Amino acid sequence: MDKQVMTRNAEGQEAADHVVVEEPLQITVDGRPVAVTMRTPGHDEELALGFLRTEGVITAADQVRKIDLEAKDNHALVFLADGVEVNFSRLTRHVFGASSCGLCGKATIEAVREQLPPLRDPASFPREALLRAPELMAREQSTFARTGGLHAAGIFGSDGTMHIVREDIGRHNAVDKVTGWALRSGTDLSRCFLLVSGRVSFEIMQKALAAGIPLVAAISAPSSLAIEFAKESNQGLVGFLRPPGFKLYAGRIE
Amino acid sequence: MDKQVMTRNAEGQEAADHVVVEEPLQITVDGRPVAVTMRTPGHDEELALGFLRTEGVITAADQVRKIDLEAKDNHALVFLADGVEVNFSRLTRHVFGASSCGLCGKATIEAVREQLPPLRDPASFPREALLRAPELMAREQSTFARTGGLHAAGIFGSDGTMHIVREDIGRHNAVDKVTGWALRSGTDLSRCFLLVSGRVSFEIMQKALAAGIPLVAAISAPSSLAIEFAKESNQGLVGFLRPPGFKLYAGRIE
Repeated sequence: MDKQVMTRNAEGQEAADHVVVEEPLQITVDGRPVAVTMRTPGHDEELALGFLRTEGVITAADQVRKIDLEAKDNHALVFLADGVEVNFSRLTRHVFGASSCGLCGKATIEAVREQLPPLRDPASFPREALLRAPELMAREQSTFARTGGLHAAGIFGSDGTMHIVREDIGRHNAVDKVTGWALRSGTDLSRCFLLVSGRVSFEIMQKALAAGIPLVAAISAPSSLAIEFAKESNQGLVGFLRPPGFKLYAGRIE
Repeated sequence: MDKQVMTRNAEGQEAADHVVVEEPLQITVDGRPVAVTMRTPGHDEELALGFLRTEGVITAADQVRKIDLEAKDNHALVFLADGVEVNFSRLTRHVFGASSCGLCGKATIEAVREQLPPLRDPASFPREALLRAPELMAREQSTFARTGGLHAAGIFGSDGTMHIVREDIGRHNAVDKVTGWALRSGTDLSRCFLLVSGRVSFEIMQKALAAGIPLVAAISAPSSLAIEFAKESNQGLVGFLRPPGFKLYAGRIE
């Protein structure tokens, strides 16, 4: 989603330009504000679902009765199904949060590790499925996104089938949007891998683990902590996925 | 700061690789935890100072008596000077925070705008000073950073003098590191501009405003909200600063 604005160039000439839209989305659960995220509008319901899932608040789509996006601009009002017990204490960990990353307020990395046990069955994906994915994802991205204005995230099956691609100004939001889509569509993520357009930080691995995704591939580099977390979690981690090459940092490729 | 790891390529051959280090830094103020940020270690004292400044907790370096980095790994223990009253209520706004961006917990954008009045005197910078800055910053960046593994932020005087450049895996941390450096060195930021290596989101403009920086320039694109915020705040905003060209989104260039 982009917007036209007027600019001046270095010679002072006026010209139209397109910029990516960034707006806050406040997510409330049964009236309780749980997050404000800066996102690119679009697929907000998936974003809210995916956020609640990757933060460990909900585990299934049917725990949510309704998501109201119409009541108030830039608000996702999430209403839980009757009888659903939500672990709000996970969010109370965020009390101290004030950070530039999604980890904000989780008092320690250890707390994250405690909440998310490692995968029991590390998956292995065929090399060919991985190598096909970047081209498939690029076709789904708008020209604007390919020029670097937006992050993209995609979910792919082990046979290389592309399930979904979403874009956002925030890399974490793009991931939340695809996991939210998967939650709603009932896609089994334990046989899928996640492809992200940029770098992989610790938090992307954490979100993937919370959603049950066994392998994360990235067009660019992983961080040191992403690699450590992947190894401890039995997750696969591929970086620099630029066909015909890639670098495997954790896990196995067939 | 990078770290060597072992990888396998697409043909299964093992090779050494260098990845950027990502580790959490917990910032406490007089024993009270205020933030956990995922950062690249190095210049942690500047990061803590800059973070507290750009979040509006402190306004001058002498409000801090000591920052202890030795007591505990990945902790910055900040101790305030006697008699300093800190506005912790700004941080209590973060109670609801759980987001992928640095805005986490600020309940609304409006709250940010209330806390940060617009600049009274919009600055204008000479075109030549801007056009020289990217090359100066690139010289200071490590090869690794230039290949995209790290974000960089730099402070430049209105005559184009480069004051400081810092790098981090988090774009917001790189900005906090340079504003923290400026706070400690007593640099008057009201006559300086900030150059960032990547894109400009709302939050970068907000951090610049909190630090009193009148112009932000970026190698890449700004978001829609960054432009709106810049206009409302009397800040200048330059994108796509790629000599000999750039795009001016807000403010004036001489």
